[in-house]
Amino acid sequence: MVPISTTPEFSREEVGLALRNPGMQLEGLRYPVTPIGMHYLLIHFDIPRVDPATYELPVTGRVRNPLKLTLEDIRARPKVTMPVMMECGGNGRAHLSPRPISAPWYDEAVGCAEWTGTSLRPILEDAGLLDDAVEILFTGHDRGLDQGVFHDYERSLTVESALRDEVFLAYEMNGVPLPPQHGSPLRLVVPDWYGMASVKWLKEIRAIEEPFEGVQQVLTYNYRQSADDPGTPVTRKYPHALMVPPGIPDFLSRRRHVEAGRITIEGRAWSGFGPVERVEFSADGGGTWYDADLGDAVGPYGWTSWGSEWDARPGEYELCARATDASGKTQPVDGKEAWNQGGYGINVVQRVPVQVG
Amino acid sequence: MVPISTTPEFSREEVGLALRNPGMQLEGLRYPVTPIGMHYLLIHFDIPRVDPATYELPVTGRVRNPLKLTLEDIRARPKVTMPVMMECGGNGRAHLSPRPISAPWYDEAVGCAEWTGTSLRPILEDAGLLDDAVEILFTGHDRGLDQGVFHDYERSLTVESALRDEVFLAYEMNGVPLPPQHGSPLRLVVPDWYGMASVKWLKEIRAIEEPFEGVQQVLTYNYRQSADDPGTPVTRKYPHALMVPPGIPDFLSRRRHVEAGRITIEGRAWSGFGPVERVEFSADGGGTWYDADLGDAVGPYGWTSWGSEWDARPGEYELCARATDASGKTQPVDGKEAWNQGGYGINVVQRVPVQVG
Repeated sequence: MVPISTTPEFSREEVGLALRNPGMQLEGLRYPVTPIGMHYLLIHFDIPRVDPATYELPVTGRVRNPLKLTLEDIRARPKVTMPVMMECGGNGRAHLSPRPISAPWYDEAVGCAEWTGTSLRPILEDAGLLDDAVEILFTGHDRGLDQGVFHDYERSLTVESALRDEVFLAYEMNGVPLPPQHGSPLRLVVPDWYGMASVKWLKEIRAIEEPFEGVQQVLTYNYRQSADDPGTPVTRKYPHALMVPPGIPDFLSRRRHVEAGRITIEGRAWSGFGPVERVEFSADGGGTWYDADLGDAVGPYGWTSWGSEWDARPGEYELCARATDASGKTQPVDGKEAWNQGGYGINVVQRVPVQVG
Repeated sequence: MVPISTTPEFSREEVGLALRNPGMQLEGLRYPVTPIGMHYLLIHFDIPRVDPATYELPVTGRVRNPLKLTLEDIRARPKVTMPVMMECGGNGRAHLSPRPISAPWYDEAVGCAEWTGTSLRPILEDAGLLDDAVEILFTGHDRGLDQGVFHDYERSLTVESALRDEVFLAYEMNGVPLPPQHGSPLRLVVPDWYGMASVKWLKEIRAIEEPFEGVQQVLTYNYRQSADDPGTPVTRKYPHALMVPPGIPDFLSRRRHVEAGRITIEGRAWSGFGPVERVEFSADGGGTWYDADLGDAVGPYGWTSWGSEWDARPGEYELCARATDASGKTQPVDGKEAWNQGGYGINVVQRVPVQVG
């Protein structure tokens, strides 16, 4: 369970998490592929130091042929390169009131890197899943205490989910070996899900015969309306549009100042439930919405660019953006609609206060 | 002036600054050269997008031969590669009470990258400083509002400071072109000063005939005891030692859990006032200090490794580290000794609460 705060101020613990788990500066939405060091990070415990030269990944458990793969073995397999829009399951949490106490994200726990690696399915096929395997468990080299339990960070996927074509193991980010903070030397990437599924610093892949009930599977990362609600698992990313805040900022408040005139508001949008079909822009806090122009998606699991002309006249505005995907899902305009105990999947519309002139 | 908070809780604005200005995860002290994406960032306004292909740097003002240098011109000049330990002038601010409201750093606004570029002095010699030039003004492409004034981020150095051998213009970080967030395509590096002097995204270098009195020179980045104190400028880094927090963390509180037994506490130390001559370690909150072993410095402007054996027995501890440099300067054990209005240069000793066993 995640503790809840009823005050608008933040605790020392929340600030500590923010300082070591950066968001993407939203001007980074300008780049189709997010530069390393601008992509968000959520590191549950410490960044482990794993030597790529001696690295071995066991693929074990309910398999016919247990494997032990070196990084060289993995790099020798067929190569997949894919831009993937990644978003933390807790993005938007800080908009909530009362507020679950964890990484205090507003809108910035996002990034779209180009990951290179190899598909998971052929590895599982080489290992030969036994008929009684129901889930694949991915364990990281990162270890710590959460929810009162010492554990390695680990999460499972059902066999069906794990065998999907688009699930892969990545050893490069933006064309260079994975940096330590993004999972060096090898991580899982589950492109359409929130980031918690993409286990970093892989230590083991294990086929298991019972559903995994570890801390990060059943205690955190579930949508719960109350503490005794068993909840439903956090999986795919809800639709979400963000804009590059226009104009220039005030250092402390980040309030934007824009010169009067016709400008283009630009941004990116994504969904784990299907292609983005519509992005709307509002300059009056969501009172009136206009359809934005959609650009290209950065691959099937990247984000989609959008733009909207805005005739900025002197005054005060609240700019908003809203995405709708092919499944018909869209974004709530108010955090109350999205509230849940852990503060997960909060895709409430972005609000950018702007002064023009 | 920086506003002051008398409450231990943090404001939305402080959290917003923390989310876009990451610190180095302290386990990053393990690396002699900090990986890109783990190095701290302090971005006053937005990250500007500057095209390296069309980039031009004017060197102008009180010079005989104004220059306009392309990135190609700058890359063709003699190459300097130097590891530089960089620290934000506001590091440690969040330890203060009352607390100046700005980027709420505890200990993590640090990093030591290997920068590559070219010396500034020969460029100023080619431009030919006129006799009435007293300062060199460095202007960035980043612009915003701070202290009630719209301005480009800009800072000056006296001619004497600017002509020092170790001051250089950098176009690479850790062997790759500067990432956008670290000043692409060109930044200044002033190795022994706090980070505010190392102006990013250079737009212009101008020799001026009067001391610069802009916002970031006289309103911020000065040591002041009260609001009407004219203050003294923030310049060189005070001595500072940090350790890799041992053991494993609690997710939220970051409290450390260590297994009983003999372990090595390791870290790095630095000073802008001269080589580190001594690092001390304490396991009882600064009651008793032991000399740590000093390792090598990562070049003359990098940091120095240190280590101390610790026989961790079951119980509760507060681990501390303290550096002393060749000038005799050391670190205060209490934030009260270091307090100033802006929360600058707060090199109070690190405290790491640890539970053993």
